[in-house]
Amino acid sequence: MPQIRLALAQVNPTVGALEANADLVLRFTAHAADRGAHVVAFPEMVLTGYPVEDLALRGSFVEASRRTLATLATRLTAEGLGQIAVVVGYLDRDDDAAHTQRLGRPKGSPQNTVALLHGGRVVTTQAKHHLPNYGVFDEFRYFVPGDHLSIVRLPGIDVALAICEDLWQEGGPVAATRAAGAGLLVVVNGSPYERDKDDARLDLCRRRAAQAGCVLAYVNMVGGQDELVFDGDSLVVGADEAVLGRAPQFEDGCLTVDLDLPAAMAAGPPLGETSHEYTADYLVRRSVLSIESLAPYTPEPAGVAPRIPDQGEVYAAVVTGLRDYVRKNGFQSVVLGLSGGIDSAVVATIACDAIGAQNVYGVSMPSSYSSEHSKSDARELAERTGLRFATVPIGPMVRAFLDNIELTGLAEENLQARARGVTLMGLSNQYGHLVLATGNKSELAVGYSTIYGDAVGGYAPLKDVPKTLVWELARWRNAAAQEKGETPPIPRRSIDKPPSAELRPGQVDADSLPDYAVLDDILDDYVEQDRSSADLVAAGFDPELVGRVIRMVDAAEYKRRQYPPGPKITTRNFGRDRRVPITNEWKEPLPPEMR
Amino acid sequence: MPQIRLALAQVNPTVGALEANADLVLRFTAHAADRGAHVVAFPEMVLTGYPVEDLALRGSFVEASRRTLATLATRLTAEGLGQIAVVVGYLDRDDDAAHTQRLGRPKGSPQNTVALLHGGRVVTTQAKHHLPNYGVFDEFRYFVPGDHLSIVRLPGIDVALAICEDLWQEGGPVAATRAAGAGLLVVVNGSPYERDKDDARLDLCRRRAAQAGCVLAYVNMVGGQDELVFDGDSLVVGADEAVLGRAPQFEDGCLTVDLDLPAAMAAGPPLGETSHEYTADYLVRRSVLSIESLAPYTPEPAGVAPRIPDQGEVYAAVVTGLRDYVRKNGFQSVVLGLSGGIDSAVVATIACDAIGAQNVYGVSMPSSYSSEHSKSDARELAERTGLRFATVPIGPMVRAFLDNIELTGLAEENLQARARGVTLMGLSNQYGHLVLATGNKSELAVGYSTIYGDAVGGYAPLKDVPKTLVWELARWRNAAAQEKGETPPIPRRSIDKPPSAELRPGQVDADSLPDYAVLDDILDDYVEQDRSSADLVAAGFDPELVGRVIRMVDAAEYKRRQYPPGPKITTRNFGRDRRVPITNEWKEPLPPEMR
Repeated sequence: MPQIRLALAQVNPTVGALEANADLVLRFTAHAADRGAHVVAFPEMVLTGYPVEDLALRGSFVEASRRTLATLATRLTAEGLGQIAVVVGYLDRDDDAAHTQRLGRPKGSPQNTVALLHGGRVVTTQAKHHLPNYGVFDEFRYFVPGDHLSIVRLPGIDVALAICEDLWQEGGPVAATRAAGAGLLVVVNGSPYERDKDDARLDLCRRRAAQAGCVLAYVNMVGGQDELVFDGDSLVVGADEAVLGRAPQFEDGCLTVDLDLPAAMAAGPPLGETSHEYTADYLVRRSVLSIESLAPYTPEPAGVAPRIPDQGEVYAAVVTGLRDYVRKNGFQSVVLGLSGGIDSAVVATIACDAIGAQNVYGVSMPSSYSSEHSKSDARELAERTGLRFATVPIGPMVRAFLDNIELTGLAEENLQARARGVTLMGLSNQYGHLVLATGNKSELAVGYSTIYGDAVGGYAPLKDVPKTLVWELARWRNAAAQEKGETPPIPRRSIDKPPSAELRPGQVDADSLPDYAVLDDILDDYVEQDRSSADLVAAGFDPELVGRVIRMVDAAEYKRRQYPPGPKITTRNFGRDRRVPITNEWKEPLPPEMR
Repeated sequence: MPQIRLALAQVNPTVGALEANADLVLRFTAHAADRGAHVVAFPEMVLTGYPVEDLALRGSFVEASRRTLATLATRLTAEGLGQIAVVVGYLDRDDDAAHTQRLGRPKGSPQNTVALLHGGRVVTTQAKHHLPNYGVFDEFRYFVPGDHLSIVRLPGIDVALAICEDLWQEGGPVAATRAAGAGLLVVVNGSPYERDKDDARLDLCRRRAAQAGCVLAYVNMVGGQDELVFDGDSLVVGADEAVLGRAPQFEDGCLTVDLDLPAAMAAGPPLGETSHEYTADYLVRRSVLSIESLAPYTPEPAGVAPRIPDQGEVYAAVVTGLRDYVRKNGFQSVVLGLSGGIDSAVVATIACDAIGAQNVYGVSMPSSYSSEHSKSDARELAERTGLRFATVPIGPMVRAFLDNIELTGLAEENLQARARGVTLMGLSNQYGHLVLATGNKSELAVGYSTIYGDAVGGYAPLKDVPKTLVWELARWRNAAAQEKGETPPIPRRSIDKPPSAELRPGQVDADSLPDYAVLDDILDDYVEQDRSSADLVAAGFDPELVGRVIRMVDAAEYKRRQYPPGPKITTRNFGRDRRVPITNEWKEPLPPEMR
């Protein structure tokens, strides 16, 4: 059987940074070539970064992407990398008038495309066939679907291409790959992290490899882009579903796998020409690379990186999201309020792990209702992590407002949170820090936060992390430190004490909210699973509580709209994933026996 | 030729308020019946309100919509309205497993559907065929497209149905209507307002009536739903493109039109049965209503409401958007900061027109940098409009911050805006007012606002109104008052003085921004038309200025994400219409000669 050394370049591109992304492709191609790879594959739309959202609708951006691809092909050859086949995603346009007209779209509409570069030229291209338009994805808005499978013949081996969602659907490229008898299917991806998605991904790759009847190589990007985090997890599986190699999660790098593949059988076109055929009702375009037969070599074993356990995986996702938001938006440092509570302690620890404690500014902003331990726990956190710590009591600012406007009850509580928000924003404006909001998903769900108060910030690391998971992350992070012989960053008392906003004397969250374990269960059912109140009551939750939680969630939509972005880690975040109206009189009906 | 009296019910439903919307349909049907109408048509998804966004994905909501439709049919009969044919939009699901499988969607997927009710039953239904997935629309996310045209025979007349986007596209229902030889095409719509859209809409209706070869009746909703405003403008045009009737913009009501229509020619199914045929490659379902032939009657002339001139139309859209946001979200009153400038003066006037001056609270919040005229102009505005006026100097609050944190330059400027934001939010929390943000689209575009400062609010009436149009609206509103012999609400000086944020001594907008006329031109090209910097320079704009404005727009995306909602009045608002990444290194290239 013919041999091939395949490299999967699990890289971290930046949206819009065409030149820098092309440099990244050059650098990793050189690295792959050094390691003797014959083919190197990069993620979906690596040249533009992903997702580009409405940038896809800007003609100047599409043209720049096309130019960058063409230039990349010649640069590769100029740097002596013309003999390695480079699979690279980019943004193109569909100039096939017959095709776009059939779809009712204008000629020149954008396409999410993958190219194979070799010998200084673009050997073939293929547009994404299945366009996801659910969850965080809006690809029908942007792209015209592709209509063909490209197969490129390296000496003796036929390599087929597919893009991300093409793998999640049965028809189209995967089915055509089998029908066309390819020996390897290379799938380029921009597949955002969700909890436990790595398991689903592996199962899917195994199933599709079996369906395609060949080895399947899956390459995904790493890094953060606004609310999305890409977890890498690139892998190669055989048609027999064996895992032949797997890259680590959340780390960039290059996975190299030596493969013995079945020899190409179908008749190919002459060198330099393209043939067209219909296979299983799908158009197949074949090309042949002008490289010599590969000399036999001794295969090396590929690595199979271990999976990160659950809490560690979520923690790594949030750290990655924050690090890239800071770095890609040009910040050097962050500032956040430290209340002595669990949320701000976990956010501070995440920030220290993401950008270094010396770049993290924590501010204790006690009021007259702040407990002694809220101040000492904040100080202890600073000592444990080494972050830069300051105290700014908010009493004088709060009093100045109260002396001039009559504010009582909730209005006075919110005032304290807003005095803190103004303080943090002042420090941000003065010193250029990015403000981190410390709220968690459970609070955001029920509106248990002060808009323009504790909700201020440029980024909210725990936005998609339910409160019960915040505690788990804290315990996991402390245990991980202990295992390595380091100081656990989070004070024991911040984990153990009952959560409180401390906006009035003796206040604790439990005054207004159910136990967080129960709340998070209800929220998971209602928000993530779209289950009805009748389903929830049938599942055993207290009907009065279900009704109250759902009302809180529905009424807080206006606050969520103005909340900062934060990394998605669940199947449905409060962002692009869940789009509900603010003006909305729908009330989930109670089950029949309750009406 | 057979006669028919057609009523178009231009109503204002509320998203999620199924019962109230059904009541609205009953009330307007009774009204149409009183006026002798044989058919009454309501807007797209009138029973659920529109757009329902992710509510479409909640099974409980879909079921409730279906139940509401079934109940409505029997309620109509119970109230003696069984003999009028009622065309009504609602949310349904597609239970045709063969159809959904062909589309790769699960059985039971939601559909945007129109039903014809008569005699206590649902005579026929038809799902939207063309699903818009551009601009503010995401209908591929929600709906499975329909696959047939329903034609219902009233005695002697064949009536065909279509839904909104079906009218904007050539194929599908419109083509099938012609092929099937219908005498009337009723199109139900949820078509959001954009400037000058009424002209485009009339042209389109004329063209499609000619293509369908029959009279076309277009019914649209009125009212506000979050960022969308529906302008009504329901109309009827003949196959000869003559306007047979037209309803006013932004007002609910019932347009009645007497029509002489060609007699139905095609063979229909027996009474109570449905026939199926393929016409022009499209499935046609025919039904026959069990009503007696209509007795001849004397037709009455239909009204053709005059169009509102441009500024008045925009003004009415913003008033409608604000009024419905307040009312549908359960607020009674609004509060806003009055700076003496043009933006807050126009917002205050809009608020007074929307909900009455007695419900509008204006607060002057002078600082040490505030000019004398900023205070007197605010007071004069209050006197002219009759709104409730208060003064809260922010000096003590600003000093309390400055005494405790060192803030200088921009940080100090922003602090003043934030002290005002905290003051307004305090009043909102204390008294339950909705806070109005007063920023305009030009400021929002270039980031010339303070996040959590002047940007606080639940609703931003001028969010989509460029600064130059704000001045036009002010002049138009004053002139309209003068024409009616009323006091012009907006002080002359607020219109004439150079705009200034007054955050430092002698500051005017012109220090940091180009002339607003030039700025708005550039913004229109870059934001709304997606033109490149090269195009802008070719159009004659100063290259340095173009580069600077584009950089400002790109850098302000993070602020726009946290800005309150406001009514869309242009072709591309800063909301669902324009979805660009925050993390984005794309820089529009300078034209070749500038590089």
